[in-house]
Amino acid sequence: MLDYAALHALAAVVREGSFERAARALHVTPSAISQRVRLLEERVGCALVVRGQPCLPTDTGRRMCQHMDRVRLLERELHDALPALAPEVGTRVVLPVAVNADSLATWFAPALAAFAEQAPVLMEVSVDDQDHTGEWLRTGAVLAAVTGTARPAAGCNSQPLGAMRYVAAASPAFVARFFGEGVGAGSLAQAPSLVFNTKDELQARWVRRLCHRHVELPRHSLPSSQAFVTAGLAGMGWGLHPEALIAPHLADGSLVELVPGQTLDVPLHWQTARAASGLLDGLTRQMLAAAQRALLPL
Amino acid sequence: MLDYAALHALAAVVREGSFERAARALHVTPSAISQRVRLLEERVGCALVVRGQPCLPTDTGRRMCQHMDRVRLLERELHDALPALAPEVGTRVVLPVAVNADSLATWFAPALAAFAEQAPVLMEVSVDDQDHTGEWLRTGAVLAAVTGTARPAAGCNSQPLGAMRYVAAASPAFVARFFGEGVGAGSLAQAPSLVFNTKDELQARWVRRLCHRHVELPRHSLPSSQAFVTAGLAGMGWGLHPEALIAPHLADGSLVELVPGQTLDVPLHWQTARAASGLLDGLTRQMLAAAQRALLPL
Repeated sequence: MLDYAALHALAAVVREGSFERAARALHVTPSAISQRVRLLEERVGCALVVRGQPCLPTDTGRRMCQHMDRVRLLERELHDALPALAPEVGTRVVLPVAVNADSLATWFAPALAAFAEQAPVLMEVSVDDQDHTGEWLRTGAVLAAVTGTARPAAGCNSQPLGAMRYVAAASPAFVARFFGEGVGAGSLAQAPSLVFNTKDELQARWVRRLCHRHVELPRHSLPSSQAFVTAGLAGMGWGLHPEALIAPHLADGSLVELVPGQTLDVPLHWQTARAASGLLDGLTRQMLAAAQRALLPL
Repeated sequence: MLDYAALHALAAVVREGSFERAARALHVTPSAISQRVRLLEERVGCALVVRGQPCLPTDTGRRMCQHMDRVRLLERELHDALPALAPEVGTRVVLPVAVNADSLATWFAPALAAFAEQAPVLMEVSVDDQDHTGEWLRTGAVLAAVTGTARPAAGCNSQPLGAMRYVAAASPAFVARFFGEGVGAGSLAQAPSLVFNTKDELQARWVRRLCHRHVELPRHSLPSSQAFVTAGLAGMGWGLHPEALIAPHLADGSLVELVPGQTLDVPLHWQTARAASGLLDGLTRQMLAAAQRALLPL
């Protein structure tokens, strides 16, 4: 059996970033924390924390913290099933999830907040491209994720959420300046586009579908869904925006579609680790209901 | 003298993520790209790119790409000074900058967009905590940054931007549920707080100033300024929000101050690499003007 007091200390060091703050959080002395982590490292046979400012987990250390999160989740189930056991009033379970930025900026945040407002959890949200959130699940860094792929990660269940509709849009002045002669490979090679980050492939996919070939796009990168819209409104570039986020701007004409009707629908799926957890089931119900209202049926 | 055709190929591989796409972008064959990068690696004496999907730069490779960005910036100056030299119509210079998320969500994005709409640039925006953007400058990953510290990074100039005012706020229902007996160390230890990510120290600073000691806060982490506000409105937790972002919610009562008048002002500075560049000067002018309108004087 693992030494869970030591694991608890390790998780605190990683969460707090230092032995001193971990000690304060657990109401013990720094030397007690240090001793527990050292014993655990001797048992495992390798370093679990890189001592620095902040202290960071090694790969093995991170894996052990994830194990700790899962055990806590199971404990919470047990407490719910056996109320007599439970003096842990007010204890909250850490639920790490990964989501794509555009979901977070639209339907995901209100649904998550509604769930967290009721459930005894502390949500730990990580943001990555929908084509990369599956990797977070696979490595065990999160217990649930919004992914672009339907195929479940190992040890996970997958359910369809719906499709997010993207519209290629820019300000009317930008369209007049760069697309006066129409939208084609020639004009797209000159007009600055907006990408979220280097992982963002949506613009390139839209252009391939329109022009039936690759066009090298000049790109601004701007890693924020809302800043993307601000940049679009100010005429910095054209980009693929979630329809839900720019509907008011399309309605009042401050943004216009590059090619009317040429939208891109991105299917999204909800994947969860196969841990028998009522909390995770509750989160799943909330997510599926919110997605059904906000996304297009797959 | 370095082989700039080879550096150009290296930068394209890093930007595009593969030798094939770099070749397409530069209108040469993949084997030409591969040969140029290999020659450069032989010259430098170490690998510059880790071949994979995507191809990623080694530390040395990244440093060489940054050098390339700087040379391009100087070339742009030269072209502007010697118009006769300039057949490079439509060429845009990559300007990498780092900014804290709350600035990006408020005053920074419109100012950046206004600059980029006029200047022959492609902005590459990275987001990090204001206490860590200085590191991006120091390593040369960006040419300009919004930082929390006035002390210039090596080789950089620093100018004050102003202070961003933060307000500790939550929904009225959340305040009634957790702070009915007042805001103090006891209630703060029970009420879930919102942090942007593990680097985010603002909530802890605010609590230390209020309670004159450290309080271990239960924390949801949610890495998006706007999702932070959504979560606050839905009663998921209390958090420190930029006043500019939640002013309408404070006005209509959907968010309320935890301790009226107990705000936190965070000074921000604008640091730029000391490259004699008119483009960077133009960006600086835009940033200082926008900050003067949006931030409090230091």
